[in-house]
Amino acid sequence: MQFIAVDWGSSRFRAWRIEADGQISDTRESDQGLKSVTDGAFEAVLTQACGTWLEASPESPVLMSGMIGARGGWIEAPYCPCPADMQAVGAAAVKLTVAGRPAAILPGATCTDALGHADVMRGEEVQIFGAAATLGLSDAVICIPGTHAKWAALEGGRLTGFQTHVTGELFALLRGQSLVGALAEGDADDPQAFLAGVDHGCATPAAHAVFAARADVLNGRLAPTSASAFLSGVLIGNELAARPQTGGEVLLLATGILAERYGQALDHLGVATRLVEAKAATRAGQIMAARSLWPERLPA
Amino acid sequence: MQFIAVDWGSSRFRAWRIEADGQISDTRESDQGLKSVTDGAFEAVLTQACGTWLEASPESPVLMSGMIGARGGWIEAPYCPCPADMQAVGAAAVKLTVAGRPAAILPGATCTDALGHADVMRGEEVQIFGAAATLGLSDAVICIPGTHAKWAALEGGRLTGFQTHVTGELFALLRGQSLVGALAEGDADDPQAFLAGVDHGCATPAAHAVFAARADVLNGRLAPTSASAFLSGVLIGNELAARPQTGGEVLLLATGILAERYGQALDHLGVATRLVEAKAATRAGQIMAARSLWPERLPA
Repeated sequence: MQFIAVDWGSSRFRAWRIEADGQISDTRESDQGLKSVTDGAFEAVLTQACGTWLEASPESPVLMSGMIGARGGWIEAPYCPCPADMQAVGAAAVKLTVAGRPAAILPGATCTDALGHADVMRGEEVQIFGAAATLGLSDAVICIPGTHAKWAALEGGRLTGFQTHVTGELFALLRGQSLVGALAEGDADDPQAFLAGVDHGCATPAAHAVFAARADVLNGRLAPTSASAFLSGVLIGNELAARPQTGGEVLLLATGILAERYGQALDHLGVATRLVEAKAATRAGQIMAARSLWPERLPA
Repeated sequence: MQFIAVDWGSSRFRAWRIEADGQISDTRESDQGLKSVTDGAFEAVLTQACGTWLEASPESPVLMSGMIGARGGWIEAPYCPCPADMQAVGAAAVKLTVAGRPAAILPGATCTDALGHADVMRGEEVQIFGAAATLGLSDAVICIPGTHAKWAALEGGRLTGFQTHVTGELFALLRGQSLVGALAEGDADDPQAFLAGVDHGCATPAAHAVFAARADVLNGRLAPTSASAFLSGVLIGNELAARPQTGGEVLLLATGILAERYGQALDHLGVATRLVEAKAATRAGQIMAARSLWPERLPA
């Protein structure tokens, strides 16, 4: 084994044993996310989950990314400012000793817009560097859909800036707990309603556009069973209208319904996408980070 | 008494006894909104609340506006399409007999945007016509802040179009139940943070802009105690950036904190506002509607 890679989020704990050839030889996954760890017993959780790996390879370092470095995690790892390449992110990691060997918690990344407002990510930067590297790209626009979707720009191998869109969180709130979504029945897929939503969301500010998911049902223009797909389209369309406008393709790190919907929406807008498997991107990014942190132990 | 005016919403029942001079001589108000009325017993609730008025003036008609005309209300009154003046809205009212005298339920209004999506209002149209009439205006831009804020254009005495922005509902959801608002502490006023939010919301799509209420706190740029005011500013700024762009003043139908914040935000953007008392506007609109419905009984 070369090193242990840990993706430790709020809800899930995931660890991989990475071999010298970059392959995963074993995995651990549980619901021991940050929220379930009491009294700061992070080392105990880690050594219990990965005890046999640690015993078998007393020298192998441990690399951790995700919310484990947030305030309220193991140790707060202050965000690394953009522009930053993987080397800079690695250099900003917090170093510690775990089970007698070197370990590091990656810092996430931050950037600032023209008005001085901050944006932050924690964990996605690893996926971004990894996704571009696996495709041999040093310039890319990358989209990671989700609760807090991220749009990032990679230029010359450096993460130069990114934007968070709380699209997934807005959808869950509006669909489940608002008057806007109260007339929707079920969440069936409906590509036609979805794309009508994308067009509406592209053309119209969100707080107005989403109201059509109610008004169009009241006026008989939208079936209640199509309202959820329409609302999803409105919010995704609104996000896509604000995306970095480049001529090139978008790397899409997504699976399942989000991969499908973002792919459909971007295709509808004439934007080429290349789907990247998120776990593979994470692993590739963690290998890059580990090699930048411990070059003597992990030669490329 | 000339007529009984009822503003019957989801949560509240309000009735006024309107005299020949347009003044209110008595009022009834209770929490017997639509949600509390079982088995469709609307007439019973009305005759119980206003029994003495009905007995004293057996000829006086009853005018009702608000959600009472929605699906699930007393009788569904289909929305009146824009453009429409008060006369057209009155003509689209649903007529019925209550306690042996004529009564009407006003229909609300609907309009359609360039992509064919509907918008609706129910009750605000009465306030809009009333507000303009009390000021002697036949052209105006009117803003009614709230859970579902309305921006309406009145041209030549006709409601030509309007937009709903679910600003209040988004604020409540994001402040109370989201990761975006989770770092905010309290809801204290902070005009400086509020106006910084307005600027940010004017310049930035909502789903991205609101994330700064979290990221700026994480990066130490925003005090947790100012995050609620900032978030409010972001959402109001986003709404204002999409307002009808006219050179003239905006009639603002609001009270309390919303009147204050919308007034501050519009002033910050260099837009003149004239505050109109919402209850007075409602009463004026109801008098207009009643006179258009029953001209022989209620001469101007």
